[in-house]
Amino acid sequence: MNSNNYLIIMAGGAGTRFWPFSRNNNPKQFHDVLGTGQTLLQQSAYRFKNICPLENIYVVTSEQYVELVKEQLPFLEYSQILAEPSRKNTAPCIAYACYKIGTLNSEANIIISPADHIVLYEKEFEHKINICIEEAANNDHLVTLGITPTRPDTGYGYIKFEKNNNEVKKVEQFLEKPNLEKAISFVESGEYVWNAGIFIWSLKSFKKSFEKLMPEMAQQFELGNDHYCNETEADFINKLYSNCQSISIDYAIMEKADNVFVVLGDVGWSDLGTWKSLHEVSEKDSNNNAVDGFVEIYDTKNSIIKTPKHKLVVVQGLDGYIVADHDNVLMICKKEEEQNVKLFVEMAKLKGEEFV
Amino acid sequence: MNSNNYLIIMAGGAGTRFWPFSRNNNPKQFHDVLGTGQTLLQQSAYRFKNICPLENIYVVTSEQYVELVKEQLPFLEYSQILAEPSRKNTAPCIAYACYKIGTLNSEANIIISPADHIVLYEKEFEHKINICIEEAANNDHLVTLGITPTRPDTGYGYIKFEKNNNEVKKVEQFLEKPNLEKAISFVESGEYVWNAGIFIWSLKSFKKSFEKLMPEMAQQFELGNDHYCNETEADFINKLYSNCQSISIDYAIMEKADNVFVVLGDVGWSDLGTWKSLHEVSEKDSNNNAVDGFVEIYDTKNSIIKTPKHKLVVVQGLDGYIVADHDNVLMICKKEEEQNVKLFVEMAKLKGEEFV
Repeated sequence: MNSNNYLIIMAGGAGTRFWPFSRNNNPKQFHDVLGTGQTLLQQSAYRFKNICPLENIYVVTSEQYVELVKEQLPFLEYSQILAEPSRKNTAPCIAYACYKIGTLNSEANIIISPADHIVLYEKEFEHKINICIEEAANNDHLVTLGITPTRPDTGYGYIKFEKNNNEVKKVEQFLEKPNLEKAISFVESGEYVWNAGIFIWSLKSFKKSFEKLMPEMAQQFELGNDHYCNETEADFINKLYSNCQSISIDYAIMEKADNVFVVLGDVGWSDLGTWKSLHEVSEKDSNNNAVDGFVEIYDTKNSIIKTPKHKLVVVQGLDGYIVADHDNVLMICKKEEEQNVKLFVEMAKLKGEEFV
Repeated sequence: MNSNNYLIIMAGGAGTRFWPFSRNNNPKQFHDVLGTGQTLLQQSAYRFKNICPLENIYVVTSEQYVELVKEQLPFLEYSQILAEPSRKNTAPCIAYACYKIGTLNSEANIIISPADHIVLYEKEFEHKINICIEEAANNDHLVTLGITPTRPDTGYGYIKFEKNNNEVKKVEQFLEKPNLEKAISFVESGEYVWNAGIFIWSLKSFKKSFEKLMPEMAQQFELGNDHYCNETEADFINKLYSNCQSISIDYAIMEKADNVFVVLGDVGWSDLGTWKSLHEVSEKDSNNNAVDGFVEIYDTKNSIIKTPKHKLVVVQGLDGYIVADHDNVLMICKKEEEQNVKLFVEMAKLKGEEFV
């Protein structure tokens, strides 16, 4: 294993689309969503076990989740858990971790990965990530793993690449979530992949692009080189974040840089962003129900039922519903209308912070 | 108020059709089912407040519910709470209470009432009960309050009476739950009422009929006259019940006696025997939903939702469902197929006694 390989896991999200299962004090990355025995965060770390030494894994999260991260990944030193004082989107999050790693190893190859996605085909994933690292280590390229789309999903961003036979393809454009018509044409063209938010670059290439495209922010993080990895780090970061622009890495760098490349991967990826996506990747019974709980179902199909282990749940006569019972919230709604979950969360917030 | 008036409330039922709300350790009569601030048992007692002195109220229940009864009707002395060692249907239950009252007042007029029914029109109910008492006190008649049917319900027993203009009508026949065709003809004929299990008789008339129609059981209970109201009562009853026939008062007496009369009452009665009947008598929103809980509903109609007060419940897109969340059970099923609840209870029993 190359000791220059580093992993940054972004684990600060609140995952509200997955309410009421995902909650402010315990968002989805800390749940064993698929009942595999591992939480999404744990999966996100152990997925790289053959790529990146454990001591090179860094998790960026909110201050309130530091202990949860430590609990779930006990091999981490506290210095490997980076606490963000506030949510500033992905660019500051990634910059913080990259600059910190930079003070330890200027030859670092860095993988950026979300904490709350799933990957069903881990071997293939590993294979593709190794290609990405190879590319990033030997070229001044920003690399991303693009997911071969299996349907015209309007919930993901897309990446357009130059069609050729190379394993590593030049990116033409990053595109925001499209409407259905566009999504269909994207998938049919064969020139687009999903943006999974997985990036691979050398520290040097990252700094070069960051300094060029985000000079002000780069300067701020550069000032931290005397603070990262010592006791003034938290103070420094608190001050930096209080004035820091909130901006995504896509917008700050990926959409603007001209040295972005993509490796296509058919790795059984899902961002588990919604209940419907959970249904898609879950094991289903013969009636297309994804059931997780102490549940007896009768005359029910195409539904997803996720309830506490010790509560007896009887469901009869549902077709295409989500039944989610978690803590102090019970939600029953149509799977096809799950965009409503966002509204439910807003409503719940009005009822009290304890419900979100 | 006539100090000869006594009330016997039968409160020993398990009410399993109302699962998971009604449970073995806390059946429906002890719940404030309609959210009125009073449990069904409390309503069943206070409904007679102008008819029967509090010290003349007797509640027959299972041993395990004695403290629940005392808690909910604190004015009762323990001697007014009769504990049955086992369930033997209504005839022994009523006989026990009647014989005990007989040792205190041989001139007693006795009203028998279930503990788990509701009556919406209390004034009218009181008026009709007074007519029944008048009839029972002055004639050797067994009287029952028959409920004017409002629909061809197949869940109730019916009583056929002799059509005439008298307020008190002679009963021709007690009939078990009919099929729908019969139920329709019963209601159309105008010669049938629902059997609400409410009986009114003098102690003397009861004993006379009981001795005639159930001579063996009458003899057994007669032997208790030295035990009722003293410390040997429980022992005596335990022995008696261990050999006692399990039989309903309808089958033991009402269907056979030739001196049964009925007073017709349109009193907003329901036995609350099922979720559907609860829906019928509950207050509904403009979409015909009966909701009891901390519930937000969207695009939902004809449903009944009964959930804990402090749990935020979001329901979207249901039509004609029961959602019942109580203790360690959540049930979601079609209202029109609620006969399944019986099967769910059997299933739940197999999962563990704690679920029924």
